[in-house]
Amino acid sequence: LHIPKKTHQPKVMRPDDANIVGNVHGGTILKMIEEAGGIISTRHCNTQPGDRCVAALARVERTDFLHPMFIGEVAHVSAEITYTSKHSVEVQVNVLAENILTGAKKVTNKATLWYVPFSLQNVDKIIEVPPIEYASLEQEEEGKKHYEAQKLERLETKERNGEMIQPVLSPEPFTVGISQSSLIHLVGPSDCTLLGFVHGGVTMKLMDEVAGIVAARHCKTNIVTASVDAINFHRKIKKGCVVTVSGRMTFTSNKSMEIEVFVDADNLVEADKGQYRAVTAFFTYISLDREGKPLPVPPLKIENEEEQKRFEEGKSRYLQNKAKRLAEKERQ
Amino acid sequence: LHIPKKTHQPKVMRPDDANIVGNVHGGTILKMIEEAGGIISTRHCNTQPGDRCVAALARVERTDFLHPMFIGEVAHVSAEITYTSKHSVEVQVNVLAENILTGAKKVTNKATLWYVPFSLQNVDKIIEVPPIEYASLEQEEEGKKHYEAQKLERLETKERNGEMIQPVLSPEPFTVGISQSSLIHLVGPSDCTLLGFVHGGVTMKLMDEVAGIVAARHCKTNIVTASVDAINFHRKIKKGCVVTVSGRMTFTSNKSMEIEVFVDADNLVEADKGQYRAVTAFFTYISLDREGKPLPVPPLKIENEEEQKRFEEGKSRYLQNKAKRLAEKERQ
Amino acid sequence: LHIPKKTHQPKVMRPDDANIVGNVHGGTILKMIEEAGGIISTRHCNTQPGDRCVAALARVERTDFLHPMFIGEVAHVSAEITYTSKHSVEVQVNVLAENILTGAKKVTNKATLWYVPFSLQNVDKIIEVPPIEYASLEQEEEGKKHYEAQKLERLETKERNGEMIQPVLSPEPFTVGISQSSLIHLVGPSDCTLLGFVHGGVTMKLMDEVAGIVAARHCKTNIVTASVDAINFHRKIKKGCVVTVSGRMTFTSNKSMEIEVFVDADNLVEADKGQYRAVTAFFTYISLDREGKPLPVPPLKIENEEEQKRFEEGKSRYLQNKAKRLAEKERQ
Repeated sequence: LHIPKKTHQPKVMRPDDANIVGNVHGGTILKMIEEAGGIISTRHCNTQPGDRCVAALARVERTDFLHPMFIGEVAHVSAEITYTSKHSVEVQVNVLAENILTGAKKVTNKATLWYVPFSLQNVDKIIEVPPIEYASLEQEEEGKKHYEAQKLERLETKERNGEMIQPVLSPEPFTVGISQSSLIHLVGPSDCTLLGFVHGGVTMKLMDEVAGIVAARHCKTNIVTASVDAINFHRKIKKGCVVTVSGRMTFTSNKSMEIEVFVDADNLVEADKGQYRAVTAFFTYISLDREGKPLPVPPLKIENEEEQKRFEEGKSRYLQNKAKRLAEKERQ
Repeated sequence: LHIPKKTHQPKVMRPDDANIVGNVHGGTILKMIEEAGGIISTRHCNTQPGDRCVAALARVERTDFLHPMFIGEVAHVSAEITYTSKHSVEVQVNVLAENILTGAKKVTNKATLWYVPFSLQNVDKIIEVPPIEYASLEQEEEGKKHYEAQKLERLETKERNGEMIQPVLSPEPFTVGISQSSLIHLVGPSDCTLLGFVHGGVTMKLMDEVAGIVAARHCKTNIVTASVDAINFHRKIKKGCVVTVSGRMTFTSNKSMEIEVFVDADNLVEADKGQYRAVTAFFTYISLDREGKPLPVPPLKIENEEEQKRFEEGKSRYLQNKAKRLAEKERQ
Repeated sequence: LHIPKKTHQPKVMRPDDANIVGNVHGGTILKMIEEAGGIISTRHCNTQPGDRCVAALARVERTDFLHPMFIGEVAHVSAEITYTSKHSVEVQVNVLAENILTGAKKVTNKATLWYVPFSLQNVDKIIEVPPIEYASLEQEEEGKKHYEAQKLERLETKERNGEMIQPVLSPEPFTVGISQSSLIHLVGPSDCTLLGFVHGGVTMKLMDEVAGIVAARHCKTNIVTASVDAINFHRKIKKGCVVTVSGRMTFTSNKSMEIEVFVDADNLVEADKGQYRAVTAFFTYISLDREGKPLPVPPLKIENEEEQKRFEEGKSRYLQNKAKRLAEKERQ
């Protein structure tokens, strides 16, 4: 039997995958994407003699949610390895929503993920990735360009380690203080890979959950994930940790909200290792009416200089992404 | 086919039901207890013509965790209706842990729960409970005494509505500030009864989860639930709410910790209904070494008058429960 | 994008899918098989104008578990429509376990399922199935033969409606009474299809769970599912029901145990509909030592005539299946 470098994974969406209006959570989709990517990279990195290994998620490129997905639809997740460096694997994942009653299909996501293989014998050792064969020299060079670009971006990312979300006493409506939220989650065995570290997809699902609550608290309507900025996974989270996921609104445009999300891990048992920041990311949400049409978003009320600074940074990310989308459309 | 007033429900304990050492979470057991109680009361209240109904949890009496339960053991949950008033049902639930490999069995819990049946046609209407037959006049009178006692206690309970857990900047080890924790949970369809309200057992599981994190943060060891005080469910929590569950340590004895837990519900969609306190309770935890023997608990460092007041109240609850246990032992 | 008449569905096995020794539960595999079959049949039956529909499981042919599957392995479930009658669809499902660390693959199951499409507009109406194209006339005739054979068998199956498992006071080791078990499960929204009926796969998973408890109680060792007899789904189970799943041992050979499993549904809310028998089946289990080698099974101690009768019937099923397996081997 031949196991290909591609994988295809259909799954029916259940009530528990969605909000009360029936929209599948962005976090559920991110988790499926990461699962498919994890399977294909782990399989590829074990096609050689030597140490057995598990591929751990290192980075997800910016991902747009092009269409909503609903309960009862079948999500088709296809993954393909598109580039390999000495120590990392690039995976392209496409998600298609199929309404098996009407036969209608629509592409909901296209994502690019980077994985790094860690040895099962020594969980701190990164093993070498077997090279893939490229269809053309062009394809290989294109892949190399992506690789160098993400490497640079990874180095630039700061973990914002010192920053914590501080509560605000009696906050007013539409301020940062009134919608900021955090949850704690005790890491269980089902959350972890064979290495005993939390699946990247589990972390992203928690992040989307918090971002969704922040967005709903701000505009009190049905909200859905519109996009996620590139996410770098700087540090692994171990089984038995308590994870604190916090979110706060940074920016609002006419029809969208940007929410910054922090993930902090706290090893209760090996207390000397202390609490550390594991991941940060920006989620963009939109607000929908009963027919699924976008609604205007109430503007964020800024209360101090720091919030103003974060708002400006959010605005510049928003304008950059808008410009990028326009440029892509023109190219097509 | 005859439907008895008793029910018996075995379930195998899985890795996700337990902590990393293998001890089944107290919250998992509370959830199973409530499920069995809910089934038997709903069944009983539908054995008459008229409105169809679902029994909602109104109160759980103080419950001790007599023995730990482990992954792989079968939990046997038996429930029996022991008293009915015009609008409520008393259910006794016993939990037995069976090691199916050695055949060893031990009683882990005995709990008493009160349910109130709400109409499916009109979720605000409480329907009348069909009376049960008692084995003896004595049994009926005993039941009535319990009923009156819990009714009185229910009325006395205050919801502590104003109180919120305030964060502490740079807290010191073993203070109240360093271990206090809260989580948010978006209520999904699987959390709810046919009426669209959260199962009492789901709420208790979240409460135990937060209490466990507070206890682990305080003493950094393997901790297990030892008992839960009587819990009154004052207000129902609806599908689509965000639930905030917060816990803080109130008291420590040599070998136990008391944690106060608040449950606040926040209806994002019907925002005018506002946030309200749904449940409060006290959980007692103990700390165990690798062999499962109780460890001394580091004393709680008190930092202000309010904490001192709560500590004294916790101490008096602790002494009362100790006296009650001793009295029961002597009676046997 | 082209969605084929075949589907392929990989999934990583997690700790909760397996027992404490790491063997994936037969019930988990049956649930994945049914999920794949349900997707492909529902899709096929909606490829025509008219009522939208959901395919409900009507029957599973006898299924062998050829190899154990372990935590961390990837289960590949492929499904293909192989025959259609006017009102039913035959689906062949293959399951392959892939160890992505070593690259080893083994076929674990080959199953045949029958689905019947019910209208979403009127849940009691069965709609017509669009015909498939056969590769050859031979293939079509082969399919028709299967179809007629299963139709006959379906009619013959008796539901054994009156029979209940009665508890035995102080049962002795290795008797039927000591290992018989039952569990109850409250049907939630995630257990159900769009029609509001329980997925066939969810029911089979519960059946396997009870059969596994019976087998473990009998021989106190690591036990795994070896095969399941043909299962007919006579009556649908609705959301809000309580399901009681009961199992008792009927027969033991040197190296295997046969367990009969009953599924009774109880509509708590529409109590007048009464309790009814929804499904019955026979599961065969084997006992394994620490290296995964089969162990001898302690002989079942028969205590009365009825048990003797069931034992003889089990023996004849056992001998028939053995003869069938031998005949198949010779043919190859």
